[in-house]
Amino acid sequence: MSMIKGSVGTVVTQYYHHTAPLVLESGDTFPSLTLAYETYGKLNRDRNNAILVCHALSGDAHIAGFHEGEDKPGWWDAVVGPGKAFDTDRYFIICSNVIGGCKGSTGPSSINPQTGKPYGAKFPVITISDMVNAQKLLIDHLKILQLYAVAGGSMGGMQALQWTVSYPDMMKKAIVIAATGYSTPQQIAFNEVGRKAIISDPEWNGGNYYDTGSYDAPGPVKGLALARMVGHITYLSDESMHAKFGRSLQSKDRIGFDFSTDFAVESYLHHQGDTFTQRFDANSYLYITKAIDYFDLTKDGSLVKGLAEAKAGFLVISVSSDWLYPPYQSQEIVSALTANEREVRYSEIRSNYGHDGFLLESGQVNYLISQFLSRTIVGDVMFRNVPTIEEGATTAVTARRMINLEVNHLPVLSGDGHLVGIVTSWDIAKAVAKNFLWLDEIMSKDVHTTTPDEPIESAAKKMEEHSISALPVVDADQHLIGLITSDAISTLVGRGNP
Amino acid sequence: MSMIKGSVGTVVTQYYHHTAPLVLESGDTFPSLTLAYETYGKLNRDRNNAILVCHALSGDAHIAGFHEGEDKPGWWDAVVGPGKAFDTDRYFIICSNVIGGCKGSTGPSSINPQTGKPYGAKFPVITISDMVNAQKLLIDHLKILQLYAVAGGSMGGMQALQWTVSYPDMMKKAIVIAATGYSTPQQIAFNEVGRKAIISDPEWNGGNYYDTGSYDAPGPVKGLALARMVGHITYLSDESMHAKFGRSLQSKDRIGFDFSTDFAVESYLHHQGDTFTQRFDANSYLYITKAIDYFDLTKDGSLVKGLAEAKAGFLVISVSSDWLYPPYQSQEIVSALTANEREVRYSEIRSNYGHDGFLLESGQVNYLISQFLSRTIVGDVMFRNVPTIEEGATTAVTARRMINLEVNHLPVLSGDGHLVGIVTSWDIAKAVAKNFLWLDEIMSKDVHTTTPDEPIESAAKKMEEHSISALPVVDADQHLIGLITSDAISTLVGRGNP
Repeated sequence: MSMIKGSVGTVVTQYYHHTAPLVLESGDTFPSLTLAYETYGKLNRDRNNAILVCHALSGDAHIAGFHEGEDKPGWWDAVVGPGKAFDTDRYFIICSNVIGGCKGSTGPSSINPQTGKPYGAKFPVITISDMVNAQKLLIDHLKILQLYAVAGGSMGGMQALQWTVSYPDMMKKAIVIAATGYSTPQQIAFNEVGRKAIISDPEWNGGNYYDTGSYDAPGPVKGLALARMVGHITYLSDESMHAKFGRSLQSKDRIGFDFSTDFAVESYLHHQGDTFTQRFDANSYLYITKAIDYFDLTKDGSLVKGLAEAKAGFLVISVSSDWLYPPYQSQEIVSALTANEREVRYSEIRSNYGHDGFLLESGQVNYLISQFLSRTIVGDVMFRNVPTIEEGATTAVTARRMINLEVNHLPVLSGDGHLVGIVTSWDIAKAVAKNFLWLDEIMSKDVHTTTPDEPIESAAKKMEEHSISALPVVDADQHLIGLITSDAISTLVGRGNP
Repeated sequence: MSMIKGSVGTVVTQYYHHTAPLVLESGDTFPSLTLAYETYGKLNRDRNNAILVCHALSGDAHIAGFHEGEDKPGWWDAVVGPGKAFDTDRYFIICSNVIGGCKGSTGPSSINPQTGKPYGAKFPVITISDMVNAQKLLIDHLKILQLYAVAGGSMGGMQALQWTVSYPDMMKKAIVIAATGYSTPQQIAFNEVGRKAIISDPEWNGGNYYDTGSYDAPGPVKGLALARMVGHITYLSDESMHAKFGRSLQSKDRIGFDFSTDFAVESYLHHQGDTFTQRFDANSYLYITKAIDYFDLTKDGSLVKGLAEAKAGFLVISVSSDWLYPPYQSQEIVSALTANEREVRYSEIRSNYGHDGFLLESGQVNYLISQFLSRTIVGDVMFRNVPTIEEGATTAVTARRMINLEVNHLPVLSGDGHLVGIVTSWDIAKAVAKNFLWLDEIMSKDVHTTTPDEPIESAAKKMEEHSISALPVVDADQHLIGLITSDAISTLVGRGNP
């Protein structure tokens, strides 16, 4: 493995062949399917440090590191690796190519097992929800009961959001970047132009152009290049294009007064369009853009209702100059989550790069995601099944319980299970000194508590302020559900978390 | 003529055949050319009430009223007609189809006199400046020495701006709406996508598709429709598309899970694309978008330098939600004009309609243009060659001069031509009463003055405040250059102006 600092090094794409059927949102069924995926870092013993990162329209499973013999790293290498936001020293990162794609997962260019030929336009129409359901099969296959997080930008952000609704208990955290809760007519319009360009190309031929078995052969390359050109404009901002190209001419001293390429921006777009046709399948472009258009998490027209089932703690990020998925769409997600009393943090990346800013502003993205992922809450690290003692006990019984269970704190509960106090070994010592016989005489009744969703930084501060070494964790009804100790927090900080 | 209130009624397109050559910016020459144009209202005796309105990419000469047998009015009927901003009761409105177009003026679908066949791709590449030079031939033909104003939105605004630079003395006023001083890379990129769509269409056939002699025959209709679809998205705003379409389905109860049209916005775009191919020539689309791309009034990278020669009084208007020609581009024009000490008024139309707002917000456009056009300045209505008298004259000489010249005011000049006072017939009466013999004893020495660029409203107010009936007009050196009287202003207001 070549060791580049901060890089995951050489990686290989793996394939999961799922041999059972998957029913799609349309009602159609895949009899079986394949998912290409890559993983980085190690799954820990508790299998609870896995993060699924979802890719955008033209992405693939290769998010970080290098494929043998290639010198171009994965598409989000800037934020995935040792010490980066998706820290492979701490997390087990998973990325899989979406179904409908052309990078190893079952898509229109795959062989239809029922005909022995490529699906082409016979491939069923899929949705973001179908993509997520397929990913769920992979996560199950990896025997991960709960993801630490799902994350993604653009269409990847839509998948992350869909995950929180389709499988609310399957993740602790969700990171949604430069995305939306539903596709808008402007987004649909741009996608439809791209599709129309492909379908209008005579080489598309009703989706049957796989004769040579490889999609970088003929096919509707002109249409696909056009689609990509349109798409690419929407990924940049007016300002970034100014900065990058201005009105610079391409290999000319003056305008040509003909229809050859005059401006650098034209040359750049042609190049983007042409190279895209070397690496992407036109039919996949049709199916994936359709899935994006269909994406709509509103319910009865309400995103608040649509996100009501989500349970994850959220980080929502937008890019200031993104006009394809403008900040207001991220803010709508934040508002809907807040209305559902979900924990949500929102940040707008300051950038002139437009939509692509989520890939290019890796400094800001690294910072925001690192801060978010390492923001452990009390619920993540508290002890559950905490030994307690009932009020009315004697000091002698209390002391024996402590010694037997080898604990230093005993929350004191009333008969109906409410937290009424806490007693420590130090209180026992006091009882001994002053000859108190009953627990009531020695326990602290003015108990400081915390809740599962309080950040550990805040809990730690509370302990320091009150010179105490543990905090009972209670629910809204003041029922005891756990205990957090300074020892546990200290250990956590020492080794990094989770 | 059918009389619809506020309409110019039935109109006919006229044709000016210019039989002399026109040299183009590229160095190519048209041996002769034709301009289709329409006019509305009457040219006054002084031939100084003409306004040239320039059209946008897909526009034509038919700006207002109705063609015989048609029930759709001209493209800017909302602002051209009796009592509207371009008031045909006061102004003589001219609109001509640009060269390169396909609406009657010489363009790629016209017959090349040298070959007897349509120009096609042999048509020379033209620029906005060439369009303006061709329009100038028409204005000369109409024997108009100076236009009262040139005006236009989008590409029409570019032409208006170009006019003020190419022919600075040819207009008093210029109205530039939703335009720019130079095309940006984003604008070029969208145009290039459109051109690429047309050229990629096999039916384009190198520009030779006029076999049937009519461009609504085969031709590259798929490519042209695509180009129009892209263009149309850029004319709308995200917000207006939300309002107009939302995620409404087109003739469906639920999404179709296929590639037929799902959303209303898709159907709308298809319709826009398809109908456009019935009325527009693909080659004209290539040539006109190229002219737009080439448009760049900066000189040595500076719009200040580029607009240095302009002399007109300007009204610059942008649309708040226009992202194709965003307000900052209009503001750059305003800044450059201001730096050149030109008179310029700027307004941003509040609208959610995007670029199309300049056509759709006719209420705001009517108001702003009306206000601007009727804002007459002192220089427009002052008397020049004003009789004066030198200081040191006797009251008797002064009185005789007044009577002989039939004037009521005589500005008093020093030996070196500076204005030092003013004398009226009332002062003469005073001299008689008090037996003053010298002009010095009776003239007002604390003279209120005005300047040629002061709005007449302001000059009128000054006269009222000081209970005087005339104001000498002076230049920056206090040299007398004219006189404005309350009688003249009163007459003007009574008959409307100019």
